Amino acid sequence: MSDAPVEAFEPPYYAVVFTTVRTDDQSGYRETNARMEELVKDVPGYLGMDHAQNPGGLGITVAYFRDEDALMRWRTDLEHRAAQKRGRDSWYQSYTLHVAKVERSHTFTRS
Amino acid sequence: MSDAPVEAFEPPYYAVVFTTVRTDDQSGYRETNARMEELVKDVPGYLGMDHAQNPGGLGITVAYFRDEDALMRWRTDLEHRAAQKRGRDSWYQSYTLHVAKVERSHTFTRS
Repeated sequence: MSDAPVEAFEPPYYAVVFTTVRTDDQSGYRETNARMEELVKDVPGYLGMDHAQNPGGLGITVAYFRDEDALMRWRTDLEHRAAQKRGRDSWYQSYTLHVAKVERSHTFTRS
Repeated sequence: MSDAPVEAFEPPYYAVVFTTVRTDDQSGYRETNARMEELVKDVPGYLGMDHAQNPGGLGITVAYFRDEDALMRWRTDLEHRAAQKRGRDSWYQSYTLHVAKVERSHTFTRS
């Protein structure tokens, strides 16, 4: 993840929108999150990720994948599944996950 | 927009992911943004919106719409189009827009 947004890809591809509010118990979160950011890069068809966080409030992560096979590999990754369980047990007050197929997209860059 | 994420809706519906990095010229941004947040609520089929902003960095807005007709109404709204032009002229260093049809979703809330 960098300061520039992930650019548009050639549709169709998938966007996974993960919107969270966290609890006061964030022990282990930072390390696990960093590990997940590394691990997802090994998924064939992973395209990129953006994250933004309101200080003390809502966070949004959007990850992009080429196809359903890539989604399935990430969803069923055992280390990722263990991290998801820790998230529900400790780190997240609430979250919503939307899995969506991108139909069109474009990027604007100031010249 | 509140501190809790927008909840999952019954698919299919649309998620519009708008990822931005802003310039140093933000004159008029706050007022226009507040006006757009009000205006979009009048679009039939508008479902909700989440926003998160890294201080001084990347911002992500995700707006949800019931169907393509709702998307089209918002995309072609004249006041919205004028705001988009001001965004490209002044406020955004770069942005990416992804329009995606949600195939599945779920919400978790700590009990």
